[in-house]
Amino acid sequence: MNKIGYFTRNIFESIADTGEKFLDLSGFRGTPVQELMDLCNDLISHKGIVSGIALAREVVTRYKALNDNERLAFFQELTLVIESEISNIKMVAEDFVHHPDEESLQELYKSLRTKYRKLFNRMNMAPNGTEVIVDLRRDLLRLLPEHPELKAIDNELRRIFTTWFNPGFLVLKRIDWNSEASVLEKIIRYETVHNIGSWKDLKQRLVENRRCFAYFHPSLGDEPLIFVEVALTKGIANSVQTILHNEKEEKNRDTAIFYSINNCQRGLKGIPLGNFLIKMVVTEIAKELPSIKYFSSLSPVTGFSDWLKTAINSGEDKLFGEDINTLKLALQPDWYPDPKIRKQVKNPLMKVCANYLVNQKKNGKPVNSVARFHFSNGAELYRINWMGNSSKHGMADSFGLMVNYLYDLRHIEINHERYTGKGELAISRNIKKLLS
Amino acid sequence: MNKIGYFTRNIFESIADTGEKFLDLSGFRGTPVQELMDLCNDLISHKGIVSGIALAREVVTRYKALNDNERLAFFQELTLVIESEISNIKMVAEDFVHHPDEESLQELYKSLRTKYRKLFNRMNMAPNGTEVIVDLRRDLLRLLPEHPELKAIDNELRRIFTTWFNPGFLVLKRIDWNSEASVLEKIIRYETVHNIGSWKDLKQRLVENRRCFAYFHPSLGDEPLIFVEVALTKGIANSVQTILHNEKEEKNRDTAIFYSINNCQRGLKGIPLGNFLIKMVVTEIAKELPSIKYFSSLSPVTGFSDWLKTAINSGEDKLFGEDINTLKLALQPDWYPDPKIRKQVKNPLMKVCANYLVNQKKNGKPVNSVARFHFSNGAELYRINWMGNSSKHGMADSFGLMVNYLYDLRHIEINHERYTGKGELAISRNIKKLLS
Amino acid sequence: MNKIGYFTRNIFESIADTGEKFLDLSGFRGTPVQELMDLCNDLISHKGIVSGIALAREVVTRYKALNDNERLAFFQELTLVIESEISNIKMVAEDFVHHPDEESLQELYKSLRTKYRKLFNRMNMAPNGTEVIVDLRRDLLRLLPEHPELKAIDNELRRIFTTWFNPGFLVLKRIDWNSEASVLEKIIRYETVHNIGSWKDLKQRLVENRRCFAYFHPSLGDEPLIFVEVALTKGIANSVQTILHNEKEEKNRDTAIFYSINNCQRGLKGIPLGNFLIKMVVTEIAKELPSIKYFSSLSPVTGFSDWLKTAINSGEDKLFGEDINTLKLALQPDWYPDPKIRKQVKNPLMKVCANYLVNQKKNGKPVNSVARFHFSNGAELYRINWMGNSSKHGMADSFGLMVNYLYDLRHIEINHERYTGKGELAISRNIKKLLS
Amino acid sequence: MNKIGYFTRNIFESIADTGEKFLDLSGFRGTPVQELMDLCNDLISHKGIVSGIALAREVVTRYKALNDNERLAFFQELTLVIESEISNIKMVAEDFVHHPDEESLQELYKSLRTKYRKLFNRMNMAPNGTEVIVDLRRDLLRLLPEHPELKAIDNELRRIFTTWFNPGFLVLKRIDWNSEASVLEKIIRYETVHNIGSWKDLKQRLVENRRCFAYFHPSLGDEPLIFVEVALTKGIANSVQTILHNEKEEKNRDTAIFYSINNCQRGLKGIPLGNFLIKMVVTEIAKELPSIKYFSSLSPVTGFSDWLKTAINSGEDKLFGEDINTLKLALQPDWYPDPKIRKQVKNPLMKVCANYLVNQKKNGKPVNSVARFHFSNGAELYRINWMGNSSKHGMADSFGLMVNYLYDLRHIEINHERYTGKGELAISRNIKKLLS
Repeated sequence: MNKIGYFTRNIFESIADTGEKFLDLSGFRGTPVQELMDLCNDLISHKGIVSGIALAREVVTRYKALNDNERLAFFQELTLVIESEISNIKMVAEDFVHHPDEESLQELYKSLRTKYRKLFNRMNMAPNGTEVIVDLRRDLLRLLPEHPELKAIDNELRRIFTTWFNPGFLVLKRIDWNSEASVLEKIIRYETVHNIGSWKDLKQRLVENRRCFAYFHPSLGDEPLIFVEVALTKGIANSVQTILHNEKEEKNRDTAIFYSINNCQRGLKGIPLGNFLIKMVVTEIAKELPSIKYFSSLSPVTGFSDWLKTAINSGEDKLFGEDINTLKLALQPDWYPDPKIRKQVKNPLMKVCANYLVNQKKNGKPVNSVARFHFSNGAELYRINWMGNSSKHGMADSFGLMVNYLYDLRHIEINHERYTGKGELAISRNIKKLLS
Repeated sequence: MNKIGYFTRNIFESIADTGEKFLDLSGFRGTPVQELMDLCNDLISHKGIVSGIALAREVVTRYKALNDNERLAFFQELTLVIESEISNIKMVAEDFVHHPDEESLQELYKSLRTKYRKLFNRMNMAPNGTEVIVDLRRDLLRLLPEHPELKAIDNELRRIFTTWFNPGFLVLKRIDWNSEASVLEKIIRYETVHNIGSWKDLKQRLVENRRCFAYFHPSLGDEPLIFVEVALTKGIANSVQTILHNEKEEKNRDTAIFYSINNCQRGLKGIPLGNFLIKMVVTEIAKELPSIKYFSSLSPVTGFSDWLKTAINSGEDKLFGEDINTLKLALQPDWYPDPKIRKQVKNPLMKVCANYLVNQKKNGKPVNSVARFHFSNGAELYRINWMGNSSKHGMADSFGLMVNYLYDLRHIEINHERYTGKGELAISRNIKKLLS
Repeated sequence: MNKIGYFTRNIFESIADTGEKFLDLSGFRGTPVQELMDLCNDLISHKGIVSGIALAREVVTRYKALNDNERLAFFQELTLVIESEISNIKMVAEDFVHHPDEESLQELYKSLRTKYRKLFNRMNMAPNGTEVIVDLRRDLLRLLPEHPELKAIDNELRRIFTTWFNPGFLVLKRIDWNSEASVLEKIIRYETVHNIGSWKDLKQRLVENRRCFAYFHPSLGDEPLIFVEVALTKGIANSVQTILHNEKEEKNRDTAIFYSINNCQRGLKGIPLGNFLIKMVVTEIAKELPSIKYFSSLSPVTGFSDWLKTAINSGEDKLFGEDINTLKLALQPDWYPDPKIRKQVKNPLMKVCANYLVNQKKNGKPVNSVARFHFSNGAELYRINWMGNSSKHGMADSFGLMVNYLYDLRHIEINHERYTGKGELAISRNIKKLLS
Repeated sequence: MNKIGYFTRNIFESIADTGEKFLDLSGFRGTPVQELMDLCNDLISHKGIVSGIALAREVVTRYKALNDNERLAFFQELTLVIESEISNIKMVAEDFVHHPDEESLQELYKSLRTKYRKLFNRMNMAPNGTEVIVDLRRDLLRLLPEHPELKAIDNELRRIFTTWFNPGFLVLKRIDWNSEASVLEKIIRYETVHNIGSWKDLKQRLVENRRCFAYFHPSLGDEPLIFVEVALTKGIANSVQTILHNEKEEKNRDTAIFYSINNCQRGLKGIPLGNFLIKMVVTEIAKELPSIKYFSSLSPVTGFSDWLKTAINSGEDKLFGEDINTLKLALQPDWYPDPKIRKQVKNPLMKVCANYLVNQKKNGKPVNSVARFHFSNGAELYRINWMGNSSKHGMADSFGLMVNYLYDLRHIEINHERYTGKGELAISRNIKKLLS
């Protein structure tokens, strides 16, 4: 993708090759994990750059060769490393507590620059180093639920990634039909909100009244970090099928609908990219197409169906009042082909959905993660759309409901502040009516 | 230079513009420094990205508008900020000392993620943010000698830059006559070892038997960080004039002479770039031109003249033995046009020079900084060249002596280790003879 | 595809727009064809560039809007134009015959620079002009068989294209998985020798042991003119299915098999591109992969089946001798699932095929056009492969036979000369044996 | 400059290398010119592309090695070739005269596709072929005045170049401070209207209120064909010194002044590029900067001084009437430092200049070539500027007078037509007043 990037990568490979000749690996004996740990220790201690790159490559290559169990073992070994540093940190911290001056503060910083951090920073010199470290965190996150002791490594990686993937270092690119097939293939693979079934399907999403933007990092080549798909429409679209089938050739388009946002790298979970991407894209579209006045998402109500089922089954009837029996109809399998039932459940479902999005909270924030994301970005909960996603998945997940979150540039800042500061949610009159 | 980079920068500008409309600056009153501090506090506290970028731009713009005294005042204000955090760090550190577990460790990390760090990370989102922060450190370093209280800020910036300018994120580019004029102009400006007098002079250094390589960072556009100039020669060149005047059209070239290395950004002082660059370039040349077998610098003996003068004047005669009187001849102004004197002083000067480079130490390392750099890279002190730089500056600085440090790929690793571990210097037989 | 090309194209559009404002089209009345003819006359006579480009665009746009009948009528009008010039040419030619000097020669040249040529050269200034003129010839070629009077226009276009598409102006590009989707889509569309069924199928043909190269013209943007697909194999492959299914992950590859060559632009029929492309690609591969020693096609025997049927039915028995009855077996539908029949017909079919390729001639050249192409390039008829293409189409077209034409760089020049000069064919021992 | 172009060029080199191995040059004996002619004959007759490219390269290389006398001899040999074809052309022409049908017409075309044309078309396949052929015409044009017998070759080359350099194939690029130094160096070299003294001077001409555009041809790499320098000003500038010294930092710019147009390739003399370039650039600027309303040249009155001297000396007094004596003052050396004389001669000189530009004609067109160029483009003679170019050269060439030719998009078409059709010149009221 990037000429120069490619050149550099080759050089890293060559330096690694050169270094390798002088890298005496004959002394390494033991299990793959032990050998890898030995190499890691060398990588941390060696200061020579030549064998540094070669060592980094060796570490990276061997890590990739480990199976799942070995990776777990490797991570566990790593946690031991940090434990061995705790006593040192403690000593330095005590020192600082007794004599809190600039010098002892710097010592404290230094003691906290643990071997982990050194290890990951050194590994980053290897060819494709950044990529491997991102993948390493992906592996780690998979193991974490059952191995909470690995949390310390994740904490470190998270700190590192927050700096590495600072928005100021990311690169926004438009994706279209002139993009490289290798990149487009990744878009197909990473799209999970509304599946892309074929290249023809993909082309449909890159035509004249569509936009797709992705964030890249210079060290990750043509691997997108996150991307968003946008439809340009007349008025705020209320159905994802209309968008996906690209049915209307509309004139006088005035709205940009963000209908799919996808994180691509599991290893970057929790590193904030989406909010920044949306605002970059809003700005880019506003600049390219001055006629576009409204910016809105068309988002799923992920998990609404499950939540309702659980709530009804656990007998939280007071939530639903007299609608309880009507709502139960929608819990039946295949309720929706019946127009009579559809008519009956429509209003109750939409009311409950509004309620779910606005009033169901955890730690003072909405339980629904999509809502949390958009509220935190300063968007307004604008409209709940009946039959907004009539696909099988859409029906099962949220009774076909889809939601528009509106990005009004004049209000997002204040919305954001009220949300962050006081937990207040920005909701439209429309939604207020549903709630009353 | 970079299409996409340019695109992104524009977007940042636009986002900042958009944000600015909603940025109410009317509440800010006071001196420029006070207003700037207020904005910085907002930038740190605000989490909204839209006005975040606008705020970041405002901070950056106002910083650039400050005069020298105001910048000093601003830095001093900043140091107060951290002092205000010390008590919190202390509290958290105490907590950690008493209950040293993962959780309290994370709290310690968090407390050390000071407002400085937040500030610089947020400023980095502004258009050209990275550049301004690098320049800010340049200003800071200028003030530091007289204002040691600013050291804390520098410590933080140094930590940040070490991550940002990790070799894995740098991009190596070859500079030649097809490079953009805007880049070449910078090469002319930043070359301080052997001045480039004109574009014609520059072109001479980019011809077929010359190479020039520079490191760039994706967020700094076409600003080089460091560059090295290389001459391809037959045998290890001993005179910089021969190289600069490009006199010999040699065949059977077997050597790459690194005759000028220049750091371009004063704000990156102390961030290690040079050792890595040299090794990258060695590898690149070895790949491009398999006939090149030897890699050597042709380096100045910066400060040798001053040192000798001081040493003789302070009467450290035992250093020089019976050569003392001959050496004094070289301290006369304009000694070198006289062939008789030249003949007399040649040997004594070269012996003293070898002595100076090898035996004059401070903290166990050579006092000469150029020597330190190359020894630390694993190079060998190979040869001292009489009349290696016959320019006025060369004569004044080091009696015209120049030094070759040899990079032998088979030995640099072990040389480096011996130097770092035991302080042993790699020196050639040639030099040993001079010393004996 | 090409930044600058894009820029220029836009400019052409803008100039055309600018010109259009001052282009008074109100005087044009009549049928679409008459109006177009009037515009063409203006385009030829006007010398002003501003309305020249606008006029050229108008001509191009109107031509594209014509239906098939109108295009025919337009071409017929054009032929009248040249007829009107014949008398002038005749006069000038007479003049030249009487006074054959440089001046009268130049007049003759001038008279032959007919209005056609001017028209097409002026049309070329329109945005996408080159593309439209190539498509215009495609239309013309379709009509030509039934309208031989249009031959004169085709003769002129052929002369023009031979200059425009001089090999020195073409650009060779490698097509791979990093190419733009818009280009790859065209490769899928234009591949007619061995159909590409899907994007997955395409990707298979662009993997590590495959190559694809195409010729482009700077004025035709990302429209390929011709492309060739290559498989890198161990030994000279004898079956196209092995290649298409990419079954063997071979080591020690020593051969490049050209298994599909496709002309993309019908409007460029007869303009020689293929021979040049093959030699460019041979050179490119030889440079990239020194281990590749052999270059060969794997080509169909297009029309062999039809020829044999006709020959047998018309009773040309002496051609086949005693094999006649066996051969008749192969004319039965669905003969090949029967292993007994297959065994019986194999040898006779291969013998007849060799005979067909080598001895069946028209105007002293082989009747088989694929054979003509390769012989004329200096290739050697190397081998006939039984079941070389077992697809339905392959069986129907040539009883599944496929042929290797070998490109031996040491012999192609002399082969070519013998073929062109004396009509001698280069054939291998193998083939000679079949023929004896 | 162009990645792909570079790739292709390399391939051509490689093919040429490959071909060379099989190119037996041992048979060639004789003077360099004879050997070259033999090779040319082979290049024309050989149809094999492989040795075709090698032969083409050999021809090109040997041509470049010839000295001036040998080149002349070579051209003379070439003219003999065409003479040998005359009898054939004559025969075919006779045939056509007797039976003027499509077939005999095609034969006539064929006979006129002389060996020259074949030769140049084949030479074009060599690496850098196009460049060498353009340079060959440059050599030819230099010899032509003394060797009119070479005219036939020039006629052929002119015909070829008119097709090769059709505006539809040219590429417009903006030149700025980010352009490659190698290209900028050529701009410095080719600027002859207003000399560029240094790189600093060049940079001045590429700043924010300046534009520079050049035409390139895809086969000529980074060699510009023609370029124009533009200043954006407030009002129509009347002095070239103001522009060159870039003195005023003007606001409200509304005018683009074309102050220097330079043809770069002498070998393309007479191939129309300038008119097209101006209109492309007008359009490009109009699109980029909608605030620019006026487009005008600031042009020299080349040769005015010489003409006036001759006219006065030859006693054509009636042209000047009573101004004759005043005008004679301006013929004195160093008249202009004297303010009194300046005041006296100003009006008479401007009147005579207007007269010279408008009324002095040859073949019905103005004798002044710059005027011819702009009138033919549809521009209006707008203003004569006193002290428009106060440089030594400007004073000597035209008494410091400079002229604005105005490009008013609403009138250029009709101006052009009146000029071409009836020889009418478009002149402003201003000029009319001077003439009355």
